[in-house]
Amino acid sequence: MRENPRRRQHQEAVVRQRLGQPEAGWRQRWYTIIFEADTREGRIFDVALLLAIVTSVMIVMLDSLPALNQRLGRVFTALEWMFTLLFTAEYVMRLLVVRRPWRYALSFYGIIDFISIMPTWLAFFVPELHFLIDVRLLRLLRVFRILKLTVYFEEAEILYRALVNSRRKIFVFLAAVFIITVILGTVMYVVEGPEHGFHSIPVSMYWAVVTLTTTGFGDMVPKTPLGQFITSLTILLGYGIIAFPTGIVGAELAASIMKRPLTTRTCTHCLTEGHEPDAQYCKHCGSQLPAYQNDRPEVPGGRDGATGP
Amino acid sequence: MRENPRRRQHQEAVVRQRLGQPEAGWRQRWYTIIFEADTREGRIFDVALLLAIVTSVMIVMLDSLPALNQRLGRVFTALEWMFTLLFTAEYVMRLLVVRRPWRYALSFYGIIDFISIMPTWLAFFVPELHFLIDVRLLRLLRVFRILKLTVYFEEAEILYRALVNSRRKIFVFLAAVFIITVILGTVMYVVEGPEHGFHSIPVSMYWAVVTLTTTGFGDMVPKTPLGQFITSLTILLGYGIIAFPTGIVGAELAASIMKRPLTTRTCTHCLTEGHEPDAQYCKHCGSQLPAYQNDRPEVPGGRDGATGP
Amino acid sequence: MRENPRRRQHQEAVVRQRLGQPEAGWRQRWYTIIFEADTREGRIFDVALLLAIVTSVMIVMLDSLPALNQRLGRVFTALEWMFTLLFTAEYVMRLLVVRRPWRYALSFYGIIDFISIMPTWLAFFVPELHFLIDVRLLRLLRVFRILKLTVYFEEAEILYRALVNSRRKIFVFLAAVFIITVILGTVMYVVEGPEHGFHSIPVSMYWAVVTLTTTGFGDMVPKTPLGQFITSLTILLGYGIIAFPTGIVGAELAASIMKRPLTTRTCTHCLTEGHEPDAQYCKHCGSQLPAYQNDRPEVPGGRDGATGP
Amino acid sequence: MRENPRRRQHQEAVVRQRLGQPEAGWRQRWYTIIFEADTREGRIFDVALLLAIVTSVMIVMLDSLPALNQRLGRVFTALEWMFTLLFTAEYVMRLLVVRRPWRYALSFYGIIDFISIMPTWLAFFVPELHFLIDVRLLRLLRVFRILKLTVYFEEAEILYRALVNSRRKIFVFLAAVFIITVILGTVMYVVEGPEHGFHSIPVSMYWAVVTLTTTGFGDMVPKTPLGQFITSLTILLGYGIIAFPTGIVGAELAASIMKRPLTTRTCTHCLTEGHEPDAQYCKHCGSQLPAYQNDRPEVPGGRDGATGP
Repeated sequence: MRENPRRRQHQEAVVRQRLGQPEAGWRQRWYTIIFEADTREGRIFDVALLLAIVTSVMIVMLDSLPALNQRLGRVFTALEWMFTLLFTAEYVMRLLVVRRPWRYALSFYGIIDFISIMPTWLAFFVPELHFLIDVRLLRLLRVFRILKLTVYFEEAEILYRALVNSRRKIFVFLAAVFIITVILGTVMYVVEGPEHGFHSIPVSMYWAVVTLTTTGFGDMVPKTPLGQFITSLTILLGYGIIAFPTGIVGAELAASIMKRPLTTRTCTHCLTEGHEPDAQYCKHCGSQLPAYQNDRPEVPGGRDGATGP
Repeated sequence: MRENPRRRQHQEAVVRQRLGQPEAGWRQRWYTIIFEADTREGRIFDVALLLAIVTSVMIVMLDSLPALNQRLGRVFTALEWMFTLLFTAEYVMRLLVVRRPWRYALSFYGIIDFISIMPTWLAFFVPELHFLIDVRLLRLLRVFRILKLTVYFEEAEILYRALVNSRRKIFVFLAAVFIITVILGTVMYVVEGPEHGFHSIPVSMYWAVVTLTTTGFGDMVPKTPLGQFITSLTILLGYGIIAFPTGIVGAELAASIMKRPLTTRTCTHCLTEGHEPDAQYCKHCGSQLPAYQNDRPEVPGGRDGATGP
Repeated sequence: MRENPRRRQHQEAVVRQRLGQPEAGWRQRWYTIIFEADTREGRIFDVALLLAIVTSVMIVMLDSLPALNQRLGRVFTALEWMFTLLFTAEYVMRLLVVRRPWRYALSFYGIIDFISIMPTWLAFFVPELHFLIDVRLLRLLRVFRILKLTVYFEEAEILYRALVNSRRKIFVFLAAVFIITVILGTVMYVVEGPEHGFHSIPVSMYWAVVTLTTTGFGDMVPKTPLGQFITSLTILLGYGIIAFPTGIVGAELAASIMKRPLTTRTCTHCLTEGHEPDAQYCKHCGSQLPAYQNDRPEVPGGRDGATGP
Repeated sequence: MRENPRRRQHQEAVVRQRLGQPEAGWRQRWYTIIFEADTREGRIFDVALLLAIVTSVMIVMLDSLPALNQRLGRVFTALEWMFTLLFTAEYVMRLLVVRRPWRYALSFYGIIDFISIMPTWLAFFVPELHFLIDVRLLRLLRVFRILKLTVYFEEAEILYRALVNSRRKIFVFLAAVFIITVILGTVMYVVEGPEHGFHSIPVSMYWAVVTLTTTGFGDMVPKTPLGQFITSLTILLGYGIIAFPTGIVGAELAASIMKRPLTTRTCTHCLTEGHEPDAQYCKHCGSQLPAYQNDRPEVPGGRDGATGP
């Protein structure tokens, strides 16, 4: 569940090897700047990149405001193209400096980098697409790497692990919701009919999802007494079903939190472990425990149970 | 809570015996094709069946779209009848090849198979009913059997067990919600009255359910200050009550997750496994257990608890 | 948390004594019929009472439907008065047959019985009040006593205990919600103003409650960009806060479920207890356990941990 | 997690020292009245202060009601100014009687006291701001101190601790929600467009937040089939994501509840308490603990955990 620093370093080395880091020359130099964040140039490059991403997304948002679009539309378009050209250049550069470009192009970040520059180019043909350059936001995931926010990675990993552990339960749940949605949608289509806004089964299914998740837009509502009765029953039943995701995820998280050992402090005499952070004597044999050293003092109560010494 | 493969095989044998598998002849042959999925023909039959189910449900949905209905209504009706005739033939076949047809007809899948073909026939008399052939979707539950997705069955069983364990709490909760619904509905009917859309107590109860579950369609809203005050109080109180299903289900799930066998410790004498970490003697045969060694510290408590070696 | 049968019997005796059961004569006879459910007459009386309650509530509901009210209004009024006279007679009877009428009149059920008959009488002065006889529904709580559904009482007690254990957390939570509601309501009143439907601070507070609980009727919505921005932030922040009731209740319930001993089976040799239902040998000393006798077989896994034999 | 009384007293002394309590004279006298609540005058002052706060907030609310504002607007304004002058005088007094005024002015309560009086003064320039004196409500937090409701402080601390412990998970969650909001908002802006109410990307993001949190006002709804399909998928996916806050908070609370001292076992040597049921030696001083006797089997695990004898 949690990786120690050494294992992470090892992983980075593996990544470097898979992408094929060039040994020397200008490609080696640029590789260090673009792909790594340990040198001064690399750090500057990464921060500049983050700022450029945020700025370009802001511009797209502002561009969508009718008032601003009328006055500054041309400026926005120019800036957008500037950023797209920059990002395209950066993407080409990344392809050039790695030894195995396909490996990079097909990696997680490689695909995100690619779809970040596509919308503007595709907007030649389908103008609306240019708004989709908002997907550039996904590039911000790099921020974790640059700012060395590995502790957030670990927390995200706990959440991710909780999702993975409950993937089958969630699948069963989604299948149940889907079947309920289809049947409820059909029943309401038959009961309410097009004259009350339930124009077709797919539209009724949209209503069923909106209702079962307790979103309740109110654009379509049951008007017949029978429809209102069925809706009341379904909401109550569905409410029980819809309680499952929270229960599933919460249970997994609770399990992961509670199964962590308080500490790995071990009694030097009877070798029992898991003593609490404030214990001074072994609770099993009464012999003195070695002093507790927690090198992550910001985590209260040693809950995050330091795995290292 | 989790069944081992042997027990499952045994169950399948029991099912076969209950339905009365014929010993030989064409009925034996067709029994293998229709009811089982271990031969090549059986697998082809099952996959074809699944495709037919999905297709027939898709057709019903598309048929409900006004635009498509006008153009392709006749085609859809024809296809619908074709599928219904197919499924009816299949149902008759199933009745013929088992030795005890009533056993099958009254079994879980037998009933689903029956109500899957009824709507089209009943639509002779009540035309709207033909949309209800969407219940065919329930036949998709066979997909679990065909794809040997027994692991999903186990997860569904955990969810189902959580529901069963909390059935009394949920009953108490539903009773409380029902009484609150009636009283809130009546109070709002008195306070708001028909002029603000609360035409009768049943309609107000529908509103109360929609409000208490935080769905909030907005088709009926309190307009008087007193009504808004009562609504505010009720939502806050009801919000606490409505938190119970999640809490109940989550607590049961957490209990079931945490009570899963913590170890894979196996008794060297009777080969039972899943003994607790602090056990010293096998709880089944009383022989001494080998000392416990846990070498997977990163996966807390062996959660993924491999049952096999 | 759970009462054993003896303690419950004792409580009933205490109740009887507090209300002052008459020793003999017609009052003794009627006391047994009206207050108890162990004789044949008592059971018949109670079932008739429940039916009368449900019928009278149904009549009030049907009476509120405009279509039925026009046609059957007189019949409904007559029936309503009949039931009210019946219940009034019953209430007077209850007062007569107990030795300490005030004790009964001020007890939980005594108050419910009283406010169940009031609305019809008060409706002489305020006609709308007659709908409030729906509070008669609360008398249905007796159903638990009559049907000897003590197991449901226990489950309700677990839920109630979870509420009691978390009462201070819930108070802190409600105080936080109240302060957020006032401030958010004021801010939105200032930002949106009467022209967008936020006519006054109390109305804005109603909107804030509806929004923070994710009910979202949609009768009042922010229309200015600033208002929509504040709403977005508040919903997200409020969503975290609103997650607390579920978390609080769920955590308490999980604690109560998990702290129950699996069983109270005790090893006759080393006197350790809490052995699992399927254990045959003590896991601590290896000696044979006495056979497990669970007299509540419908509860899977002995989770409800039989307390006595 | 829970502070004992001595530690709290110590903290109060620390606070007193930090703010700089004057040694003698009228400042000493007024310091005791204004800042402390242990003398009779101090208690009277604090209760009067609380009443003034509540009254002034009530007046602001009533002032916002159009009907009352027209009739009593002048009275309200006069009262508002009276309270503001009072609170300003109190604030100045507080500054005068402490020895280090800046320490107070920059402390938690000092800032709240300051922003409580600002709005009325600023309303000279921006009239709408005068409603914001509702933030005075925050001053009510003092109620905890005055009424010695330290037990509520402890419960609030548990909730606060649960928030702090899960701050990183919540940050990861909020980042995920933000990215989903931007992308969903952009996609819906492209799919639905201004003609269906999605006038710009920021407005669409507002809609995305309202939808993902299942609030669903209904002021903006998808009208195209594609938009409804994307909405359905997103709600279901988002519902899973939105389940996280509850799960995270609930898991932390469950952990904190279950980790509360399980027993009141007290070391006979060093008098520390809360030792675990299976402990044999005091973890603080290493002396042997008396054998554990639990005579409260109906309250599982001593949950109400009396800390005193």
